[in-house]
Amino acid sequence: MNGAESMLKTLINNGVEVCFTNPGTSEMHMVSAIGASQEMRSILCLFEGNCSGAADGYARMAGKSACTLFHLGPGLSNASANLHNARKAHSAVINLVGDHATYHKKFDAPLNSDVIGLAAPVSHWVRTAKDAPSLPADVAEAVVAANVRPGQIATLIVPADCAWDESVQPVDKQPLEEAPEVASAAVTTAAEMLGNGEPTVVLMSNMALSERGLELADLISQKSGARIFCDTFIPRLPRGKGRAQIERLGYFAEQATEQLAGARQLIMVGTKAPVSFFAYPGKASEFSPEGTVLHTLAESGEDAEQALERLADAIDVGGLVPRRQLLEKPGFDSGELTPVSIGRAVAELMPVDAIVVDEGATAGGACFPISAGAEPHDWLTLTGGSIGFGLPTAIGAAVACPDRKVLCLHGDGGAMYTIQSLWTMARENLDVCIVILANRKYQILQIELARVGAQTMNKKTLDMMDLSNPDLDFVKMSEGMGVKADRATTADEFNELLRQAMNEQGPRLIEAMLP
Amino acid sequence: MNGAESMLKTLINNGVEVCFTNPGTSEMHMVSAIGASQEMRSILCLFEGNCSGAADGYARMAGKSACTLFHLGPGLSNASANLHNARKAHSAVINLVGDHATYHKKFDAPLNSDVIGLAAPVSHWVRTAKDAPSLPADVAEAVVAANVRPGQIATLIVPADCAWDESVQPVDKQPLEEAPEVASAAVTTAAEMLGNGEPTVVLMSNMALSERGLELADLISQKSGARIFCDTFIPRLPRGKGRAQIERLGYFAEQATEQLAGARQLIMVGTKAPVSFFAYPGKASEFSPEGTVLHTLAESGEDAEQALERLADAIDVGGLVPRRQLLEKPGFDSGELTPVSIGRAVAELMPVDAIVVDEGATAGGACFPISAGAEPHDWLTLTGGSIGFGLPTAIGAAVACPDRKVLCLHGDGGAMYTIQSLWTMARENLDVCIVILANRKYQILQIELARVGAQTMNKKTLDMMDLSNPDLDFVKMSEGMGVKADRATTADEFNELLRQAMNEQGPRLIEAMLP
Repeated sequence: MNGAESMLKTLINNGVEVCFTNPGTSEMHMVSAIGASQEMRSILCLFEGNCSGAADGYARMAGKSACTLFHLGPGLSNASANLHNARKAHSAVINLVGDHATYHKKFDAPLNSDVIGLAAPVSHWVRTAKDAPSLPADVAEAVVAANVRPGQIATLIVPADCAWDESVQPVDKQPLEEAPEVASAAVTTAAEMLGNGEPTVVLMSNMALSERGLELADLISQKSGARIFCDTFIPRLPRGKGRAQIERLGYFAEQATEQLAGARQLIMVGTKAPVSFFAYPGKASEFSPEGTVLHTLAESGEDAEQALERLADAIDVGGLVPRRQLLEKPGFDSGELTPVSIGRAVAELMPVDAIVVDEGATAGGACFPISAGAEPHDWLTLTGGSIGFGLPTAIGAAVACPDRKVLCLHGDGGAMYTIQSLWTMARENLDVCIVILANRKYQILQIELARVGAQTMNKKTLDMMDLSNPDLDFVKMSEGMGVKADRATTADEFNELLRQAMNEQGPRLIEAMLP
Repeated sequence: MNGAESMLKTLINNGVEVCFTNPGTSEMHMVSAIGASQEMRSILCLFEGNCSGAADGYARMAGKSACTLFHLGPGLSNASANLHNARKAHSAVINLVGDHATYHKKFDAPLNSDVIGLAAPVSHWVRTAKDAPSLPADVAEAVVAANVRPGQIATLIVPADCAWDESVQPVDKQPLEEAPEVASAAVTTAAEMLGNGEPTVVLMSNMALSERGLELADLISQKSGARIFCDTFIPRLPRGKGRAQIERLGYFAEQATEQLAGARQLIMVGTKAPVSFFAYPGKASEFSPEGTVLHTLAESGEDAEQALERLADAIDVGGLVPRRQLLEKPGFDSGELTPVSIGRAVAELMPVDAIVVDEGATAGGACFPISAGAEPHDWLTLTGGSIGFGLPTAIGAAVACPDRKVLCLHGDGGAMYTIQSLWTMARENLDVCIVILANRKYQILQIELARVGAQTMNKKTLDMMDLSNPDLDFVKMSEGMGVKADRATTADEFNELLRQAMNEQGPRLIEAMLP
């Protein structure tokens, strides 16, 4: 059994079932091992950023890690931006990165680079295998590292000879660490804060945002009067009919500052103190009012749901019942196609258990609030701010949950970053409906240009944020990659196309032409 | 004058004229400064790998540096693979990477990452600006660093407040270092080797591959009997009618080993000893026969052309005349469209001073040898092995040389990596003809799979290297990004389409459907 075969069997023994791959020559023994395996599904992506984004989406929805397979430093580089997003989402991802054979590295052949250096900034755990016999143990450690809760990026660099040389037996299933409980003092302090009469906000993210976590937060709010928020960018939020509601912090500083106005105490559950996405000249980075008392009930890696249970017990929510969202659909718009009309159609039509992958940016901003009363669904957002996350993440979500409809809301600018994802959706016949919110500009930048106080707003400046001249035709691009596509120019057209898409299986793209 | 303005003026003072950009909020002051400038051309790309590849192509053809503008760590990550190629090409590139404001960094907002860590593996020079007043001097140093011959990657990280705070006057034009002369002993040793009667090979790359360098090598060959080769992957090679010929080392070890067979001495000019692109089980990494005496006449950064002049003098080539390539066109094929028929059409039709950007991979392999006797042209290859170099590099070459036709030969698999480049070609109306060599597979991998001795060659294995199911339609994708496109299924169709493309201006794509 060679190193690749034993590594693969170790992954399978440890429950890894999917590999998102774009291999090269140095990965051929791994490819060969996967080809011979019945238990590892291989999904080819035409660019590594598609693989890493897919692994992120898979981890968020499957609650466990997929692996990726990349070709030396450049393959990892191409995956890096979506690994950044996955890292910020605390997703569990195992990267297998081929490298030159150990004895070949010193010749500095064209593809040679500092793979460890490239891996470190986007990984929690990095190792280079030293020989074939150590490879099974290395990858077993990578699985354990990736699954440190809520999830980590574990990158194993595999020189080609470690894959092809004779190895040892695969490693059996490893025990994975549970998220540690929070200290009793953290619960006690939070309970005291909730009882001291001061205006209090509870801010949640990551593992706090389970269905049960949301219910507990609602009970805590009912009992104490604390207001409950989640971060602006959250890995996954269960919402819609039957779920306890939560308010989401706004993106712009003035929104978030207003939401938090009056708070004297802030309790964080699975997250950190809220800060501005960017700095702006002369404006504060921190959102909470000056002098706010900050308290962490649970770090992102701690058992936030259990901490909320203990806090609810400590303040005695007994007898209270979570307030659950009713089914409240907004009705359809007619006439002009606008961000709001799209949001209304999305809220009307998304089926039970839909997964919404949201890189809608400015044009998609209306979809979230309007769909609060839609059928129960999960909402996944761009956690690291690196655009081009949506399409790949939709791949991974659809692979993890083949029985659920994935609805990917995507700005046109971001969609171009990883547009190759459409081909993989077609090849794997994934049940994904992509809505391209086509406003033909990086609209957020035109807003931010004014906000940061930059002074030149002439045609040359705006051209650097403009996607017209020529207009992109997403219908043609989509068809060119095998995904059925249509264009909507009115609300009525969009409503009808989205209705069709929700009632059929398989990948489909709708280009929504916004004014 | 704020930091961004003084930085920009410093770049302009130092002859930087083009910025390939995909900015974000943290770069808005730089965008604003460029918008107000008459002297810096801004070219928007829809993915940062397009920018970095374009900067590589620009540097190779302009012989000087462009700058890029990227958005924090993820923007740099997306640029990284083509920076790897540019680094291996010794291209001069100045990266300006925005980052969070100095005081905002500590809050670890979503887009925060280790930008220096990401930059180091792909850069020769990295610096983070510390404040606005130091920014002009920083960027002046970056220009100098990028222009260390033949060229380097210089990355300047610019926290947002360094761009918006008040700065000092811009820095004037800085003197750039010339390539150092080689030591006399290096010339003397080479001359002795050429005179000692042992079979000798001269291997050249980088700055040795000027028109004059090739002529000198030919004279040296005539005088001494040494055989002259260039590396397999070269940044730029002048060839065709009127140029002295040179043989290119083959990609596969068995080709290169055969080419070098019998050599007892190897003189390297602007390059290193030849090694295998990848390691293969049980095969040697080094190409030159065991026991070959190796001698470096010029390192890649030394003045190789002058070293060749001195060597030619030392062995007294006086009276000899360079043997120049005659115009020898191969004629057109008819009937089936094959790699050879494409090569013949390319050789027949490329106009005087064409620039060929070659990421043709296996299907493009015939184009190079067949076009030896075409009109004079430059040939640019993939120096770092990271696919997705061709389309972006064609952008840069076309920007650097607006009066020359750029012919981009591209494999279908590699083209998907940076397909967004087509939009920039359309927007800038660049005179680029793209030939997609569509064999609907990563053919090189199917060859390499067997060569590395991997054992499973079943459908599942081959699917990981297969681009069919669904077939990509490059005509639709190209039209979707505003570039006129056609499909050729026979040699006659291809000949006619290429003839049209060579006789008109502006971007155009031909999808060549190979069997």
